[in-house]
Formats: sequence, C-alpha cells, structure tokens
Amino acid sequence: MKILGIDPGIGRCGFGLIETRTRADAKALDFGVVTTTENAPLPGRLLELYESLQEVFETCKPDVVSVEKLFFSKNITTGIAVAEARGIVLLVAEQHKLPVYEYTPNEIKKTLTGYGSADKPQMQEMVKLHLNLEQKPKPDDAADALAAAITHSLMTLN
Amino acid sequence: MKILGIDPGIGRCGFGLIETRTRADAKALDFGVVTTTENAPLPGRLLELYESLQEVFETCKPDVVSVEKLFFSKNITTGIAVAEARGIVLLVAEQHKLPVYEYTPNEIKKTLTGYGSADKPQMQEMVKLHLNLEQKPKPDDAADALAAAITHSLMTLN
Repeated sequence: MKILGIDPGIGRCGFGLIETRTRADAKALDFGVVTTTENAPLPGRLLELYESLQEVFETCKPDVVSVEKLFFSKNITTGIAVAEARGIVLLVAEQHKLPVYEYTPNEIKKTLTGYGSADKPQMQEMVKLHLNLEQKPKPDDAADALAAAITHSLMTLN
Repeated sequence: MKILGIDPGIGRCGFGLIETRTRADAKALDFGVVTTTENAPLPGRLLELYESLQEVFETCKPDVVSVEKLFFSKNITTGIAVAEARGIVLLVAEQHKLPVYEYTPNEIKKTLTGYGSADKPQMQEMVKLHLNLEQKPKPDDAADALAAAITHSLMTLN
C-alpha cells in the first residue's frame, strides 16, 4: 500500500510517500515540500499550491492519503491560512478519487512515540528508525508528512 | 463593472452578481447559493463546491470578486470548515485570473449601514434599497454575498 502523508501549509506544504506491507515493513519512496511565493497575494499562492500538489499526486500515485488535521492552539491568523491550504489538499485528493484519513498532531505523536507531547527531534528520530533512513528526513515539513503517513500505516496494518 | 460577491461556506456558499457604473447606480444581475451534500465527507463536499463555483464564475463572468473575510468569533470548528471552503473560492477566482478583494463582516456592515453592528434584517433592507429590489434577497447567504459586492462598489466607485 502506498500512503501519501501531507502536512498542509500555505508557504511550505510537506509531502511524504511510503510503501508498507506490514507494520514492521515500511520504506520511504519520496518526500519533500512544495512551496509558494512568499508575500504574494493569497489567491495566487493557493493556485501555486494546487498546481504543485497535482504534480505530487500524479508522480506519487498513492493508494491513500493521510493528512495532518488542523488543531488551533497558537495563532488564529496562521490557522486560517493553514485551513485554506488544507481545503486545497483535500480537493486535490478528492479529484484523484483517493480515500483521505486525518490525524491530529497528538494522534501522530502518540502513534509514533507512545506519548502525545513528543518533541520534533524525537519524532524525526522515530520517522528515521521506522523507515530505516540513514539520517533524519529534512526539512521538518517533509518529516511531519512522513509521520502522518506512518501513523496511517500503524493505525490500519497488522 | 460586474462584481461577484461571495459569502464562503461549506454547506451553503452565497453568491451575488451586481453591475455598477456609479455608487448610486447598481443592479443585481444574479444571486443564489451553491450547496453541498450534508453529512458527506469533507473532501467530497469541497469538490462539489469547486465544481459549482466553476459554473457560477463561468455563468457570471465577473470583472472582480469581493469575498467576505473570515473572522473567528464563535465556533472554531465551523471556522476551520469555512476557511477550507474559502481556500476553494480564492483558488477558483485565481484560476479565472480575477482580482479578489476581501472585506470583514464589520467593514461590510459599516459600509452599507454606517455602523459595524447592524443586524441581518437591517443589512438585507439596505441591500434591497441599494439594488432597487422589490423584496429582500433570499436566502441569507445570497444577501450576504450581494452585500460584499455592494461594499466593493462603494469602496471603489465615485
């Protein structure tokens, strides 16, 4: 099963494609971030995101999509922009007729590390170990997207 | 100038097209709401919204788009869904290469009635008067969209 994890964002949107057969057998096929022009008007950035994601979905050809669910805790303005970007992510997934699963940051942390308040270095270490990578995946948004993909595999595979 | 006002929403998204030459000369060309399947999964609803808005934009052929800006005051969960829908609205506007202007609910109320805490009946009465309609426009989301369109005309025309 090919799972595409997505960490939605307007400036940087992380993606991570993994292939899994069992819980213990997972490998990273591709990961990275798509970016949009900083300080450009929002509608243009959303179109950039839409077009870049179309390419990611066409290249990755996933069976299922796992998206980090929005959880407002800090900045409402940032949160609105993330939600707008998330709308685009879900639209593109639906246009590709793919099932979408959503996990909160806490669910992702808990599934990977066993507790919901793991920090970024701990999370990245677990992503590295789980996927047998030689080093921690970079940048952060790509690591977060891989974590979302791994979470879906651990939630659904035996 | 043809101004398309949009009141973004996931279940019901209002639109209202007006034509204006001067501040005092405005008429409604079309208004209504596009709806999505209640209780259906969010990605499917966003695709429904995307496709319906494509039709609205193609039928209306506006010169400019005026969108109600998100302002979180009540329910965060509703707010996230509205922001996701708003992402789709801005994407479609950009795909049609249209300039987009955004106004907060307070700016719209203040522009139409002179004060920022006007209630819905007062707003609808002003929309009716401004556009020389025989009765208040229905439903509420369409009236809100017309109000956004009128606001842009009053902000920019002499």
